[in-house]
Amino acid sequence: MSDTLKVGVIGTGMIGRDHIRRLAQVLSGVEVVAVADIDAARAKDAAPLGARVYTDGQALIDAADIEAVVVCSWGPAHETELLACIAAGKPVFCEKPMVTSEAAALRVIAAEAAAGRRLIQIGFMRRFDADYRRLKAVIDGGSLGAPLMYHSVHRNASVPKGLYTSEMPLNDTLVHDADIARFLLSDEIAGVEVRLPRRSTRGKDLRDPTFVLLHMASGALVDVEISVNIAYGYDIRGEVSCEAGVARLPERPATVVRDAHGVRQAVPEDWRERFIDAYDQEFREWIVAAKAGTATGPSAWDGYAATLVADAALRAVESGGLEAVAMRDKPAIYG
Amino acid sequence: MSDTLKVGVIGTGMIGRDHIRRLAQVLSGVEVVAVADIDAARAKDAAPLGARVYTDGQALIDAADIEAVVVCSWGPAHETELLACIAAGKPVFCEKPMVTSEAAALRVIAAEAAAGRRLIQIGFMRRFDADYRRLKAVIDGGSLGAPLMYHSVHRNASVPKGLYTSEMPLNDTLVHDADIARFLLSDEIAGVEVRLPRRSTRGKDLRDPTFVLLHMASGALVDVEISVNIAYGYDIRGEVSCEAGVARLPERPATVVRDAHGVRQAVPEDWRERFIDAYDQEFREWIVAAKAGTATGPSAWDGYAATLVADAALRAVESGGLEAVAMRDKPAIYG
Amino acid sequence: MSDTLKVGVIGTGMIGRDHIRRLAQVLSGVEVVAVADIDAARAKDAAPLGARVYTDGQALIDAADIEAVVVCSWGPAHETELLACIAAGKPVFCEKPMVTSEAAALRVIAAEAAAGRRLIQIGFMRRFDADYRRLKAVIDGGSLGAPLMYHSVHRNASVPKGLYTSEMPLNDTLVHDADIARFLLSDEIAGVEVRLPRRSTRGKDLRDPTFVLLHMASGALVDVEISVNIAYGYDIRGEVSCEAGVARLPERPATVVRDAHGVRQAVPEDWRERFIDAYDQEFREWIVAAKAGTATGPSAWDGYAATLVADAALRAVESGGLEAVAMRDKPAIYG
Amino acid sequence: MSDTLKVGVIGTGMIGRDHIRRLAQVLSGVEVVAVADIDAARAKDAAPLGARVYTDGQALIDAADIEAVVVCSWGPAHETELLACIAAGKPVFCEKPMVTSEAAALRVIAAEAAAGRRLIQIGFMRRFDADYRRLKAVIDGGSLGAPLMYHSVHRNASVPKGLYTSEMPLNDTLVHDADIARFLLSDEIAGVEVRLPRRSTRGKDLRDPTFVLLHMASGALVDVEISVNIAYGYDIRGEVSCEAGVARLPERPATVVRDAHGVRQAVPEDWRERFIDAYDQEFREWIVAAKAGTATGPSAWDGYAATLVADAALRAVESGGLEAVAMRDKPAIYG
Repeated sequence: MSDTLKVGVIGTGMIGRDHIRRLAQVLSGVEVVAVADIDAARAKDAAPLGARVYTDGQALIDAADIEAVVVCSWGPAHETELLACIAAGKPVFCEKPMVTSEAAALRVIAAEAAAGRRLIQIGFMRRFDADYRRLKAVIDGGSLGAPLMYHSVHRNASVPKGLYTSEMPLNDTLVHDADIARFLLSDEIAGVEVRLPRRSTRGKDLRDPTFVLLHMASGALVDVEISVNIAYGYDIRGEVSCEAGVARLPERPATVVRDAHGVRQAVPEDWRERFIDAYDQEFREWIVAAKAGTATGPSAWDGYAATLVADAALRAVESGGLEAVAMRDKPAIYG
Repeated sequence: MSDTLKVGVIGTGMIGRDHIRRLAQVLSGVEVVAVADIDAARAKDAAPLGARVYTDGQALIDAADIEAVVVCSWGPAHETELLACIAAGKPVFCEKPMVTSEAAALRVIAAEAAAGRRLIQIGFMRRFDADYRRLKAVIDGGSLGAPLMYHSVHRNASVPKGLYTSEMPLNDTLVHDADIARFLLSDEIAGVEVRLPRRSTRGKDLRDPTFVLLHMASGALVDVEISVNIAYGYDIRGEVSCEAGVARLPERPATVVRDAHGVRQAVPEDWRERFIDAYDQEFREWIVAAKAGTATGPSAWDGYAATLVADAALRAVESGGLEAVAMRDKPAIYG
Repeated sequence: MSDTLKVGVIGTGMIGRDHIRRLAQVLSGVEVVAVADIDAARAKDAAPLGARVYTDGQALIDAADIEAVVVCSWGPAHETELLACIAAGKPVFCEKPMVTSEAAALRVIAAEAAAGRRLIQIGFMRRFDADYRRLKAVIDGGSLGAPLMYHSVHRNASVPKGLYTSEMPLNDTLVHDADIARFLLSDEIAGVEVRLPRRSTRGKDLRDPTFVLLHMASGALVDVEISVNIAYGYDIRGEVSCEAGVARLPERPATVVRDAHGVRQAVPEDWRERFIDAYDQEFREWIVAAKAGTATGPSAWDGYAATLVADAALRAVESGGLEAVAMRDKPAIYG
Repeated sequence: MSDTLKVGVIGTGMIGRDHIRRLAQVLSGVEVVAVADIDAARAKDAAPLGARVYTDGQALIDAADIEAVVVCSWGPAHETELLACIAAGKPVFCEKPMVTSEAAALRVIAAEAAAGRRLIQIGFMRRFDADYRRLKAVIDGGSLGAPLMYHSVHRNASVPKGLYTSEMPLNDTLVHDADIARFLLSDEIAGVEVRLPRRSTRGKDLRDPTFVLLHMASGALVDVEISVNIAYGYDIRGEVSCEAGVARLPERPATVVRDAHGVRQAVPEDWRERFIDAYDQEFREWIVAAKAGTATGPSAWDGYAATLVADAALRAVESGGLEAVAMRDKPAIYG
C-alpha cells in the first residue's frame, strides 16, 4: 500500500457526505478517489475535485486503484457490498446497521472468517470517544473490582416527526448503548427485557421513553433509559457500578456560566456536536489498519451482536418477558 | 398544650438514644419527661436527668403528663403501642418499620381513621432532607413536565457481616427508596419487579447488589440500584426524568480538594453523617404538629405502603415476575 | 447558671428581630426574657410573649435575672454596652461592627483582658458555616502543605440604591473576607492594598467592583474580589492554594436541573439563604459557652482586627499603596 | 500554492520534533519537505522519510519549493529567521518567544507592516483550545455585560530543578496568561504589578509562587496565580467576572470515579496532555492561511505585547510598583 490510502465511498446521503468531507479535508494519509451512488447527480455533487463517480457500488469496489471502501449506502445494500469487499480482499468501513437480518450477519461473518483476517470495521463511533475510552480504562484498570451494573442514558432533544417510529428507539438508538455496554464491560448480551414507562406527551403517538434491561453473560445488569423527545438537548451518560466503586462519564467541558439561570453549562444540541471528535478518530484508526490491509475497532461480530439485540428487544416489547440473545461460537479472527 | 411538649420515649436502643439526645439537647420546645424500656437498667442509663423510667410502654403512654410519644421499640411491638397512643389521643412518632404485616398496618390505619385525625408520623426522614425537598419542589414546579422515570441509587459502604441478610436490601433498604419515590412523584406503587445482578464478591454469601423496578400507578417507572457493600462510602442519589428535562440530587457540599488523587470531594461515611440534618428537621416538624394535637409528614398510610412494597419485593424475588401492590381505598384523613 | 439561659436582647432592628426569632423559636436551652430598644413601641412589638421591655440597654444589662446579653444596637452604642456587660461579668454576643474606632476597640480589649476571661463573641457567622469549617479542617490537616495564597470572592446580586456607599465594600463587606482569611490561614493581616477595576455600569456612581490584597504576617497573599451589584445572585467563594494542593468551597447543594438553560444549579439569592444555618450554629455555640460563664468563637480580638483592616483599606484607596496593619500585643485570654 | 503545503522546519529540539510529527503524521494538506538544525545529525534524525536536511536556516527559507516555514530554533535566532521569511514572502509559524527584546520585536513588526500583509503566526496555542474559545464566545456574546476582572491560574506539577530560574515564571509562564487575557478581554495590557507570596518550600531556592496584576487599557483588572511546583498536576484555570455574571473554564472531562478517595476526576499531568488538541488546531488553521499566502491567529503584534509584558513584570519585581506597558501605534495589518 502507498503512503496515501486511496478510498472509494459508496452512498452519498447525509452521513456519506460528512465522511467524504472528513476524509478529503480533515484527515491525513487518505484520498477519496471515487464516489458511488445510484443517483449519479448526487454522487457528482458530493465527489471531491478529481474523484471519479460511479452509479454501481460493485464497479467501485472492483476498481484496481481503490485500496479501501467506505459503505454509507442504505442498510439493505450492505450485505452485498461487504461480501464484495471481502471477495476483493479490500478493507471496508461500514456504517450502521451492518445488515438487516441475523441470516445476513452470519453470511458476512462466515465470509470474513473464511478470508482469514479482519477486513470490516463497523461504524460504532462511540468506541472512539475519549470519554468512553477513559471510562473503559478505569474499569479495565481493575481498582474498582468487577463491574456489576451499568446505567446508560440516551436522550435526544427531538426526532423527526412522522419519520421516527416507535421501533426506532430499539432498532436505531439502543444499538449504540448495547454496543458500548459490550465494549465497556468486555461482555456479551445474553437477554433483553423492555419496559414502557409512562409516555411523554411531547411525542404524540410515539412510544417514548423506552426502558431496556440487558442481561450480560457475566450476570452484570445493564439498564438503558432512551428518551428521544426530551427537548433540552442531546445527552449521553453512563455509569458503571463495580464491586468497590463507581465510574461515570463526565459532564461535557462547556463553559461554566453564572448568571440569572444559575451556575450552568450548555448541553450538546445533537450527536454531531457530541461525537464529532469520535468520528474523526474512528477514521484515523481505520486508515492505519486499512493501510496494513486489515481492520481493527468494532467488527462484523459486533455488528452481528447489534442485530441480535435489536431483534430481541423488538420481540421483548411484544412478549413482555425476557428474550434470549443466542450468539453462535465466535470465529477466531474476532479474538 | 404547654409551650414545651412533654414527650415519652419507648425503646432505648441505638436509634432511641439518638432521638433522646436530639430531643433533650438539640431541639427547642420539647422535654423528654419519661423513658421506657423492658430493660430497666438500659432505660435508666438513657434517660435525661430528671426523667422518669418505665419498663412498660403502656404505662408511659397512659401517664397524664405525657403529651406525645416517640416509639423506638422493636418492630413487633409497634402495633400495640400505636393503637394505645391512638386510644389515648396522643400524637406519636414511630420509627420504621411501622408494623411487620399488612394486617397490622390495616388495623392501625383503621384505628387512626376512626379517631378522625392524624396522630401518627412515621420515621421516613428522607422527606425532611433539604436536597430531596428541593428536588421535589423542582418537579412540582412543573416546568420540566410530568415525571416519567426515576433512577434511585442506594449504596452502603458495608453492612454488619452475618447480621445483614439477603432479605434486608428489600425489607430495610428499599423502603426508603420506595417511600421517597412516592413522595417525589406524588404517586403510588402499583407493582414491583426484582432483578439480581452479578453478585459482589465482597459480601461472600450476601445477595448484593439488588436491582428493583417499581411500576407507579401513573405508569412512571422507577429503577432502584441497591448496593450494600460498595466500600467507598454511603452514597444516596436520585434523578427524575421528565418530559422536557431532568432533575437530580446534587453532590454533597464537601470541600473540593485538588491533590495527587485528582479534583475530589469526600463522600459521606454513613447514614448518620448524610441525614443528620433531616433527623433534626423531622422532629422539629413533629413537635410543631404534636403541640397542635395532630401529625403531619409521612403517615400511617405511607407506613402501610412500605409494608406492601417490601412484601411484594420479597415475593418478586421468588416469582421472577411482576408482583402487584394492591392498596385499599385511602381514608380521607390521609388527604 | 440554670439549664435554660436567660437572655436579654438590645436592639430590635432587622438583625435583632431575626436573632429574637432564632433564640425564641429555633434553639433549645435559651429564653429571651427581656428586650431593649430606644423605641419602646418597636421593642414591644419585637418582644416574645412574656418578655420584659426596656428602653435603656444599661438597665437590661443590670437586671439580676439576665444571664447573658445579645447586642444588636447600632455600632456607636456598642462600646458602652460591651463595657457594661464586662463590668457585670455577663457573656455577650455582639453584632458587627464590634466598635467604630481603633481606640474603642482597644478599650474593650483592655477591659476584657482585665476581667481575666473571655466574655465577648463577635457576630462573624461565617466561622460557623459548615463549608468554611470543612475547608479549614482540610488546611489544618496539613496534607496539602502550608497555605500560600487565598482567593476570596464576595458577590452580592444588588445593594440598596443610594444607601450603599462606595466605602461600604471596604467597611461592611471586606471585613467578612478578612476575618475568614485570618480564620482559615490561622494568620494575622499585616498590610492592605486596594485596586479599583473598571467600574460596573450597573451601579451608576457606586465604586464597584473592588479588588483587595491582604498581606498576611506569614507572607501568604490573599486577594479579594468584591462585586456588590452582579445581578445573578449572592455568591461566596474561596480557594486556598497550598504548597502541594488546593482546597476550595464547594458549590451549594442546589438541585441539578437539565433543561433548556443547560445543566444547572441555582445560586443563593441573598446572605440569609446562604448563611441561615451558620447563624443558628453561632448561637448554639454561644449558648453553650455563655452557660459556662464565658465566650468562644470570634473574639473582641477579631473585632479589633476587623476595625484595623477596614481603616487600612480606606486609607489604601486614598494612598494607592500598601497600608500597614499594626496590631498591639495579643492579651493572653485570646490564646 | 498546491493542495499540499510544502513546509520546512527550522530547529529540531523537543518542540520542533513534536511539530514535525504533527505535520507529517497527524494533519492533512501539509508535507514536511525539509528540516534544518545547526546539528546536522539531530536534523537528520528528526527529518521525515524523504525530507531534505539543512544546517542553515536561511538556506531552507530560500529553497524554491518551500512554501511556508516553521521556526522552532532558540529565541535569539528568531529575529533573523522571521525577517528572512518576510523578505521571501513566505508564511511562517514561530514558536515562543517571538524575539528576545523590544527592539527586535519592533523591527519584525515594521518589516511585516512594510510587506503589507500578515505572514507571521506566533505559537500561543491556548487561543486554539476549545475551552478558551468557548469562554471567549460567551464573553463576546455580551449577555454578561462588560468584563471587569479576570482571574487566571497557572499551575505546574513541577519544573526542572536547577534549570528553571526565578525569572521564568514571568519570562516563560506569564506570557501565556497575559496573551490569553488580551485575547479573552479583547484588550491591551497597560501596566503590570508583581507580588511575591510566601514561598513554597518545595522549590528550595526558587521564587514560587508568583502573583501578578495586569492592568488592562479598559481598566479591567487581571490577577494571575503562577505556581510551578504544586505537585498535584498541570492545572490551568480562568474566570472572567463581568457586570452581570461570570464565566469560567470547565473542569477537564476526566472520568468521574467514586472510590475510597471520594468523588474525583484526574487532573492533567502536563501541558502536552492538556493542550494536545490545541497544538493540532493551531497548525490546522496555520496551514489554511499559509496556503492562502498569509497568516491568521496570534500575530507578531501579540508577540510584541508578550515581550513588553515580560519586561515590565521583571522590572516590577525590582521596583515593587506599577510598571507601565507602553505599546506603539498598531499597524493597520494587525486589525
